[in-house]
Amino acid sequence: MVIFNDMGKSLIVQKYGGSSVANTDRIKNVANRIASYRKKGHSVVVVVSALGDTTDELLELAGRITDKPSDRELDMLISTGEQVSVALLAMALHRIGIDAISLTGPQVGIITDRTHTKAKILKISADRIRLELKKGRVVIVAGFQGMNADQEITTLGRGGSDLTAVAVATTLNAGMCEIYTDVEGVYTADPRVVKDAKKLSVISYEEMLELASLGAQVMQARSMEVAKKYSVPLHIRSSFTDKEGTIISKEVKAMEEVLVSGVTANKGEAKVTICDVPDRPGIAAVIFKDISKADINVDMIIQNISRKGHTDLSFTVPMAELNKTKDVMNKIVRGVKAKGVVYNNEIAKVSIVGVGMKTHSGVAAKMFQALASKKINIDMISTSEIKISCVINKKYADGAVRVLHKAFNLGK
Amino acid sequence: MVIFNDMGKSLIVQKYGGSSVANTDRIKNVANRIASYRKKGHSVVVVVSALGDTTDELLELAGRITDKPSDRELDMLISTGEQVSVALLAMALHRIGIDAISLTGPQVGIITDRTHTKAKILKISADRIRLELKKGRVVIVAGFQGMNADQEITTLGRGGSDLTAVAVATTLNAGMCEIYTDVEGVYTADPRVVKDAKKLSVISYEEMLELASLGAQVMQARSMEVAKKYSVPLHIRSSFTDKEGTIISKEVKAMEEVLVSGVTANKGEAKVTICDVPDRPGIAAVIFKDISKADINVDMIIQNISRKGHTDLSFTVPMAELNKTKDVMNKIVRGVKAKGVVYNNEIAKVSIVGVGMKTHSGVAAKMFQALASKKINIDMISTSEIKISCVINKKYADGAVRVLHKAFNLGK
Repeated sequence: MVIFNDMGKSLIVQKYGGSSVANTDRIKNVANRIASYRKKGHSVVVVVSALGDTTDELLELAGRITDKPSDRELDMLISTGEQVSVALLAMALHRIGIDAISLTGPQVGIITDRTHTKAKILKISADRIRLELKKGRVVIVAGFQGMNADQEITTLGRGGSDLTAVAVATTLNAGMCEIYTDVEGVYTADPRVVKDAKKLSVISYEEMLELASLGAQVMQARSMEVAKKYSVPLHIRSSFTDKEGTIISKEVKAMEEVLVSGVTANKGEAKVTICDVPDRPGIAAVIFKDISKADINVDMIIQNISRKGHTDLSFTVPMAELNKTKDVMNKIVRGVKAKGVVYNNEIAKVSIVGVGMKTHSGVAAKMFQALASKKINIDMISTSEIKISCVINKKYADGAVRVLHKAFNLGK
Repeated sequence: MVIFNDMGKSLIVQKYGGSSVANTDRIKNVANRIASYRKKGHSVVVVVSALGDTTDELLELAGRITDKPSDRELDMLISTGEQVSVALLAMALHRIGIDAISLTGPQVGIITDRTHTKAKILKISADRIRLELKKGRVVIVAGFQGMNADQEITTLGRGGSDLTAVAVATTLNAGMCEIYTDVEGVYTADPRVVKDAKKLSVISYEEMLELASLGAQVMQARSMEVAKKYSVPLHIRSSFTDKEGTIISKEVKAMEEVLVSGVTANKGEAKVTICDVPDRPGIAAVIFKDISKADINVDMIIQNISRKGHTDLSFTVPMAELNKTKDVMNKIVRGVKAKGVVYNNEIAKVSIVGVGMKTHSGVAAKMFQALASKKINIDMISTSEIKISCVINKKYADGAVRVLHKAFNLGK
């Protein structure tokens, strides 16, 4: 999988999450791992998150000052977390005789737009990284942060360090971008729920994107999309073992038998149902315009068959946005003259994902049958080319994952 | 004392030390104090240190990684402390409706030389500060830090935040530079030792310089020297009360009676005596060349009268540098063919300081007599135009301060 870049040696970008650098011992471990790559002749650029819970601790400090900190000052505050990590990792590398230098996002030249706390990367002028690599140094980049055109410090939002790693790997045309985390890779199902869940050795960007957005929580969808767009080969693996993890790339070997790659359950959503909406053209547009204005992330949307000119309309939102949703819904319900609105946060979304299902019929039927065999009622269904999701009662979520894992023979 | 600057309003620079911003409640207090200045129509630039013991905690983290962290990475690490403070203080000001913006040393344009951990400020391009002041904002500057010509983050060493404040005040031609600390000002003696020690309402740069270097620990000598050079009026005061502190300026009202402004004792030094050195020309130069090469800070130097072509040579060094000194001394003793070397860390240096003594004779005699009245033996003496210091046994230090305070009538 190693691609040789223009520096004549294979360049690897490694990203270490907060749990991989949670304390000084783990930082030393990371340094040893990096050293082993250097000894094999690789050039290495490392992207690091803040130590353990540092970001949350800083946010708590801010919370003790004010309920509504300005986004600009929040960025000033929380960007310090990654700056601490990079300095400590550089020291740990020096200690074992590896030449290394730490750089902040602004020093690297990660230029973002003017948004604070969830800035978008506009470009990376990686001259400084190239210069340091040429000196034979390991370059340690503070993840999650950048600088806008006014020299203001910005941060990239959730999963920002992954994004830094993928963007740096793209810019440098790296042979591989390794994402180190506290899991060993991507599994056919959550190993805590399904005993015989199997680690996937390889998976496509598309499948991983569905898994990420479905709550597999290995990597943010946003970074996956950038990786896919620029074909950056990713390797999701654990910083606590030397085992191979899961490679994510566009070239997945075609294995006819593999219909489904994995099963996931997302318990972090709530269902909102608007009852008895007068069913006239454009009514959904009216409803979702107001919801989108309130910056609420709607996932599944189901509209039932119209009865007597009225219909029920259901959708799911992240649990964290349920209160915000309720605020908006009261106004919407009055506006569209619906009978009322019902909320349900005892739901789970169970999904099967796999590129194989594109060309195979009967996958959906098999899924519904498996759930039926355990007497699990399906509340909502949505499908894409490579995914089928069913909303069910939350208490059956683990059972549903197990029966689906077995039905699609994923443990083998 | 308020001088009007070119912005048409009196500009005040305030510096808050670590104890003044040790926790979020204290940060809110500081915000209230700043707000009261804004309401009086002042423009305010605030320089802030790291919260409480943050810098020490960061150094401890580094210490768990390596014994010998690189200076560059240390700066990367410890400069985060002030960045946290400025962001939190900006939030605290926003909370009470005061427009404010935080800036890092690099964002301000504090340009230093290439030294790390004790960089020298080369210049401050304060355009950004001026711009923000014109918008009516309180500008909060991270103390202690700057940037060198290579965009590297540097720190200014001990007392660095004071230096930032004085340098910013100079650059902006501020009417006053207030140094907030946990003491109420400069006293005639340490109030913990001398009950009737009096707060001085005003003192000259020269006297304060002597007091700073003598261990009064209110402000670093380095910042005092810059303040003196550019005639920045300073006000040393407490962030915990509204009482006036001590003004430091060059215009001290001449009061003929005031010979002595204060008495201090420094217990942080050790005495080194080289015994029976062959007394030939240049011998002191040889000795102190090696000591200075080892970067040891020598204070008092006394050479006794030569007897039979041999002399004793004594000097004092900071206690913290005694071990380093011992390493060098063995070589020196052999080199100059001295008989041996004796160390004494049971000493204290008691000093009286005052511009008045320049023109009055008899001050030294009065000092010696006061010490003699308590049967305190004097071991070494050194004098300058505005200071007389005596080295005595450490156990008599507090008693010596008391008797001198009384002898020069400082409690009145």
